[in-house]
Amino acid sequence: MECYFDNSATTKPTQAVVDAVVCALTENYGNPSSLHRVGDAASAKLEESRATVAKALGCMPEEVYFTSGGTESNNIAVMGTVNALRRRGNRIVTSCVEHPSVLECMKRLEEEGFEVIYLPVDKDCRVSKESLFESINDRTILVSLMLVNNEVGSVQPVRDAADAIKRAGAPALLHTDAVQAFGKLPFKASEIRADLITVSSHKIHGPKGAGALYVKKGTRLVPYVLGGGQENGLRSGTHGMPGIMGLAAAVSDLGDIAENGARVDALKSCLLNCLADQENLVVNSPEGFPYILNISLLGIPSEVLRNFLSESGVYVSTGSACSKGHRSYVLTAMGLDNKTIDSAIRVSFSRFNTKEETEYLAECFIKANKMLRKTN
Amino acid sequence: MECYFDNSATTKPTQAVVDAVVCALTENYGNPSSLHRVGDAASAKLEESRATVAKALGCMPEEVYFTSGGTESNNIAVMGTVNALRRRGNRIVTSCVEHPSVLECMKRLEEEGFEVIYLPVDKDCRVSKESLFESINDRTILVSLMLVNNEVGSVQPVRDAADAIKRAGAPALLHTDAVQAFGKLPFKASEIRADLITVSSHKIHGPKGAGALYVKKGTRLVPYVLGGGQENGLRSGTHGMPGIMGLAAAVSDLGDIAENGARVDALKSCLLNCLADQENLVVNSPEGFPYILNISLLGIPSEVLRNFLSESGVYVSTGSACSKGHRSYVLTAMGLDNKTIDSAIRVSFSRFNTKEETEYLAECFIKANKMLRKTN
Repeated sequence: MECYFDNSATTKPTQAVVDAVVCALTENYGNPSSLHRVGDAASAKLEESRATVAKALGCMPEEVYFTSGGTESNNIAVMGTVNALRRRGNRIVTSCVEHPSVLECMKRLEEEGFEVIYLPVDKDCRVSKESLFESINDRTILVSLMLVNNEVGSVQPVRDAADAIKRAGAPALLHTDAVQAFGKLPFKASEIRADLITVSSHKIHGPKGAGALYVKKGTRLVPYVLGGGQENGLRSGTHGMPGIMGLAAAVSDLGDIAENGARVDALKSCLLNCLADQENLVVNSPEGFPYILNISLLGIPSEVLRNFLSESGVYVSTGSACSKGHRSYVLTAMGLDNKTIDSAIRVSFSRFNTKEETEYLAECFIKANKMLRKTN
Repeated sequence: MECYFDNSATTKPTQAVVDAVVCALTENYGNPSSLHRVGDAASAKLEESRATVAKALGCMPEEVYFTSGGTESNNIAVMGTVNALRRRGNRIVTSCVEHPSVLECMKRLEEEGFEVIYLPVDKDCRVSKESLFESINDRTILVSLMLVNNEVGSVQPVRDAADAIKRAGAPALLHTDAVQAFGKLPFKASEIRADLITVSSHKIHGPKGAGALYVKKGTRLVPYVLGGGQENGLRSGTHGMPGIMGLAAAVSDLGDIAENGARVDALKSCLLNCLADQENLVVNSPEGFPYILNISLLGIPSEVLRNFLSESGVYVSTGSACSKGHRSYVLTAMGLDNKTIDSAIRVSFSRFNTKEETEYLAECFIKANKMLRKTN
């Protein structure tokens, strides 16, 4: 049996996505910038795809910009905002548990002289509303706060950040990295009140190499990827139509997000029930987001457990796919001790996982807890 | 009959490419950064793809960095070099006929205070060896010169640029945008002596949204897209495996580049022979590169001719796909008069075009030359 429980790292594309990508490679192979029939056909598909993503985000099509993925969207949002507003202030507020594609931009900006405030998180990996209100002042030009954390699934108070910006009278734009949230947590752009929202295709059963950035109408960013002026000048480069059409197909395919969430939540409960009597089991992730469960089998190193599971055909991760070999900075920020961190495993569900798979996963965990504890 | 002669804008993927992309979406859907069997399988495909591209470029696999396409490769090359060498000098040398993804970076760098020298071209759209030697001094940190121009197919003296850098004792890196050349002009990285070479997938029947940057071993660039540290830290972001595997399949599929070139050259000659007695026909592109033919039917505006052809099922472009609506800066730099520029059409061949298609194209041109001249 093969069970894939690493869906926060990447997901398997659906058949509808494969079909859309193939369509972009065969019938619709044109360059949307070309001014002839073949280009026009591609251009129509491009705008259709944009409308699909916009509908899911609850925004206007012209507020959706296609990119090569979550990392690029985050880079464009952070760098584009700072370059647009650098004369209006020097402060940037973020959290210490953001994705590396935000944190590495922050490091670069610190080198350039910006004051970056990294908000701490509590034991549930949540930034406090108070810390947002304390740190955002009238010289703040950017607040970047992820909607759902990729390692433990904590949901951040993005709306409170919007309130704090307003109260401070800050020129700041509010960016949220919604890569893990999009298609899983029901939200609309207007509700979370962010100016910039990052989404990715391959976390929702779309192809890797595609993503989007929501940019609220009237928001000015300085372009980061420069060239032929595609995407209204914000993201140049020939449109990656296979990725874009695949992303749109993945979005169309999402179904009822709340219903999916309830089903996944049942799987998570099933897993935890099966493991209820296991010694040395600690749950690290908070409640609230069903798709991610972070647990430790204390005393069994993460890599040992991950490899054991992999050989049983069960795929989970140690931390995020982007942090191989390093002790998780997210779990560290939550105040977990090293023993817990060094045993942590992330189980990340998809709406396509089954009860049977989940029970097999539990079985493997139980087996590991017996065997690995003996031999290690 | 449908004949696609806009292959410098984009190409139709081959079946082998479609198959490779589908493989990346189905069997090989893993994230190469994931440390389990599914990730390992993707990682193996990633390195296999890298080796394939490296072989085509005549370089080592570790010198190939995957990106989201030519535009991003150019941005990383230009910005990455300048950020690495900004303390060593202030001068950048390029040509006035580069692709917008280079020229727009240059504009940005001028705003930052760099001195950018835009070398002129002659009537054949070629930069002179002399101008390279004159402009490259010991404070030059970057020379960016495309290998083949996208509008007229002129081949630039990249090797002379390498000589000029050496003679000046400049710290400069040499970058060449080889998007139009790769897979069409037989060249090896070592022969053209560039430190950085941009290649794109979708110009050689690969998928859109993929490309690569050759970075000569030992060359230090400052990363431009920041995040999880993929591609040895130079280009972060989950690997776009469908694009990468598609690119590799396109490269594997290239066949004998010299042979393809000879066949395409015969098509070009066929077209010119068919049109030999047409009045008001001017050839704007120089000889030497068979894949691009730029011609004007004097007195017939480019858009009128393009649309007429499009309605006949023949697809060509006016200038590049990236410059819709503007008078070509490339043809302007070649010293052509506005009458010629305003009638210019780019016919760009693929190795898959046939003699039959070419003859039909000629027929349509001849028809246009009669009909449009009467009615306009």
